[in-house]
Amino acid sequence: MRPDLSANESKIAPMNDAVVSSIKWFEDLEEGFSIEYSVPGLTNSEIIEFAAQYDPQRFHLDEHEAAKTHFGRLVASGFQTQLLCFRPFCEKVLRNAQAVGAPGIDSLKWLRPWYPGEELDVRVTVVSKRLSSKRIDRGYIGVELNAEANGTPVLAMEWVFIMLTKEGTTEK
Amino acid sequence: MRPDLSANESKIAPMNDAVVSSIKWFEDLEEGFSIEYSVPGLTNSEIIEFAAQYDPQRFHLDEHEAAKTHFGRLVASGFQTQLLCFRPFCEKVLRNAQAVGAPGIDSLKWLRPWYPGEELDVRVTVVSKRLSSKRIDRGYIGVELNAEANGTPVLAMEWVFIMLTKEGTTEK
Repeated sequence: MRPDLSANESKIAPMNDAVVSSIKWFEDLEEGFSIEYSVPGLTNSEIIEFAAQYDPQRFHLDEHEAAKTHFGRLVASGFQTQLLCFRPFCEKVLRNAQAVGAPGIDSLKWLRPWYPGEELDVRVTVVSKRLSSKRIDRGYIGVELNAEANGTPVLAMEWVFIMLTKEGTTEK
Repeated sequence: MRPDLSANESKIAPMNDAVVSSIKWFEDLEEGFSIEYSVPGLTNSEIIEFAAQYDPQRFHLDEHEAAKTHFGRLVASGFQTQLLCFRPFCEKVLRNAQAVGAPGIDSLKWLRPWYPGEELDVRVTVVSKRLSSKRIDRGYIGVELNAEANGTPVLAMEWVFIMLTKEGTTEK
């Protein structure tokens, strides 16, 4: 299942890995560009191990305790979902490019719990692009990340990251 | 250093641990309540280990590569900052209470990089509170988390979490 995403769907196909790996500068990304990938399902142990380290709540730590809550069973920490949905985008796009950080996350929605064993289908789409008004060597790329499990939305995240411009960067 | 935070500062003192541990139900938290804690500085290895797992960008992974960027030196992943600022709040408040998750994060700002060895001073303040319009057994608590290093803001995060009400919950 692909995330139901945008009006661009019919017009612009997701980029393949060869195209993605050629993205280096601000100039190389355009509005409507998108990439898709899947995130493998988690085991109970992976959920519990992460929660014990970062988000120790009973419905992330213990199957029996989770069954007593409205979740009904063990669910992944929303922060774990966030990180594991982000990581492939970082690996495929950011780390090969002149991306130099982000001022924050504009919106993060946990739309339903991520249960053990569910593979996530993720799409990240460029939704905005603007040059810095102060510095010619950089610009801002806005993206939306949407993750689904079995056709139902699990997570949606919007943020902006900074990329250097080819034109404004002296060390080419 | 305490985060420069709110108009409530002069009126309402941060809660001490004994008060915090008595928070169980929605009814137990009020607007203006705040708690403070510190987050120990990270070593280079801790920054690199987290980044390798979740956010593999060169300025989080390698001191020499980081020195070539505008960061000037190794910096923690913003996600690591987010998680480590959240965890003590989870340990002190959420996990002892009838907190049952959150619909998302409304705003997350990385105001400046978190460098190795810097202790963070964190304050979390309750900024809003409302009962669910649909279910009498729960309500929404809005909080702001502010983290500073040496008196300068590093991270600000706002979110809302769900707590069960004592009045509406039959299993007391």
